Amino acid sequence: MSQARLMDGTALAARIVEETAKRAAVLTGRTGTAPCLATVLVGEDPASVTYVKMKQNRCRRAGITSRHVALPAATTTGDLVATLRELSADPGVHGILLQHPMGDHIDERAAFEAIAPEKDVDGVTFASFATMSFGLPGFVSCTPGGIMRLLDEYGVDPAGKRAVVVGRSAILGKPAGMLLLARDATVTYCHSRTRDLSAAVREADIVVAAVGRPRLIRGQDLKPGAVVVDAGYNAGNVGDVDFDSAVERASLITPVPGGVGPMTIATLLEQTVDAAERQLAA
Amino acid sequence: MSQARLMDGTALAARIVEETAKRAAVLTGRTGTAPCLATVLVGEDPASVTYVKMKQNRCRRAGITSRHVALPAATTTGDLVATLRELSADPGVHGILLQHPMGDHIDERAAFEAIAPEKDVDGVTFASFATMSFGLPGFVSCTPGGIMRLLDEYGVDPAGKRAVVVGRSAILGKPAGMLLLARDATVTYCHSRTRDLSAAVREADIVVAAVGRPRLIRGQDLKPGAVVVDAGYNAGNVGDVDFDSAVERASLITPVPGGVGPMTIATLLEQTVDAAERQLAA
Repeated sequence: MSQARLMDGTALAARIVEETAKRAAVLTGRTGTAPCLATVLVGEDPASVTYVKMKQNRCRRAGITSRHVALPAATTTGDLVATLRELSADPGVHGILLQHPMGDHIDERAAFEAIAPEKDVDGVTFASFATMSFGLPGFVSCTPGGIMRLLDEYGVDPAGKRAVVVGRSAILGKPAGMLLLARDATVTYCHSRTRDLSAAVREADIVVAAVGRPRLIRGQDLKPGAVVVDAGYNAGNVGDVDFDSAVERASLITPVPGGVGPMTIATLLEQTVDAAERQLAA
Repeated sequence: MSQARLMDGTALAARIVEETAKRAAVLTGRTGTAPCLATVLVGEDPASVTYVKMKQNRCRRAGITSRHVALPAATTTGDLVATLRELSADPGVHGILLQHPMGDHIDERAAFEAIAPEKDVDGVTFASFATMSFGLPGFVSCTPGGIMRLLDEYGVDPAGKRAVVVGRSAILGKPAGMLLLARDATVTYCHSRTRDLSAAVREADIVVAAVGRPRLIRGQDLKPGAVVVDAGYNAGNVGDVDFDSAVERASLITPVPGGVGPMTIATLLEQTVDAAERQLAA
């Protein structure tokens, strides 16, 4: 059997970012105001610091200003909520990214819900989840949104297909399934309590692996010709899919790295400019 | 093969309503205030008028006051939103039921979102959908919530089971699937674009039919011993399941009528008292 074609997230993300930068420049020229993403970080977790810096760098290169709000690790939920409400009300901020996890003492849900839906460019609020679920206009969670763009780019129409999402987190598995359902896939959610994961995955025309368990899904689990999207993020650049065996069986597959990962930031930048365009037009 | 056992929604709903009435009486005695459900109806659609009257009657018998707001058919979205915001802010109202459909000129979503989540006893807001989806405390959509109670009553633990939800409406199919997922079922959403519905249904240990197509699901589609919940509501008291053939194959099945239907109102009443207890304790 021939090997699967790779879905090149690096290339697609670069094109999206380039297009986004053009739109940012046009908007800045027309209004005198650059799109602005507020990044909020609680504490100094090294991985989170790195992520936020990377996002700020990518913003800068796309002509998006970022305003960083660094809060001490001991910040209370109430203080964080107040900060997010201020940013939500600030006309100089168009999008808000609250880096998570935030520490066990913070009520993360209360914090997310303090982000105004029209600035929720990371797609973490109840409202964004519901609009994704109901096929309504709104911001998408960045990784699931990036996955849908990859599928579109490679001509994969989910309508009528069996899609299996492995994982059910609030910002990855659940919204990915809802976006596929809104595009008329027959969607199955699998997770740690699923009894026969291989049998469920074998039904799938489209597999989205989003569970954070290295090489959980192997080639022998796949229906021949399946489209495989690996949103896993494990140590050592290992995805949730065993690439070497899956590539022999799938028709399309995302590499790790260079598949889903770059799409996440591209979606964040694009949605920040979407938000700025709407707010500056209002 | 022996016939399926019936899941008696009429009996369970009666017990829930009885318990709810006791709680309402205790609350009224302690606070001097009876739980109050505001019912909002736009226009005079005869079926909607009947539904609202039935809900008011059931409230009265359970010791729940209802306050009816009848708006003319020509009411604008803006006026409806203003009315719902007033009721949301009114300390004398503990729960709000907005009867739908409301007419094509109304933005139903804008109306639903004007209901304060803490008074959303019908489970129609984005916030309620998200709390159901994320397994967080909040109000459930009444029919899906009633379905979960029926499963519990008959000892059906969804954990690890394959559940197939046929239908994906915002207040029935989608939340039913999310509630089953939150209880650790492996959940598949099927719908009008599903290619081989019979094959998908045959995988299911639990089938929830919620699509509004008479007798769509037949006995031969079922895995022997499946649990069948028929939330269909079609003319002539016909469900989405062909009862006569399904009862020969299922292990448990809801009749129509007398299955899911009575659970919906029972859940509405119970959640109204839940809301009143919280608001009057605050």
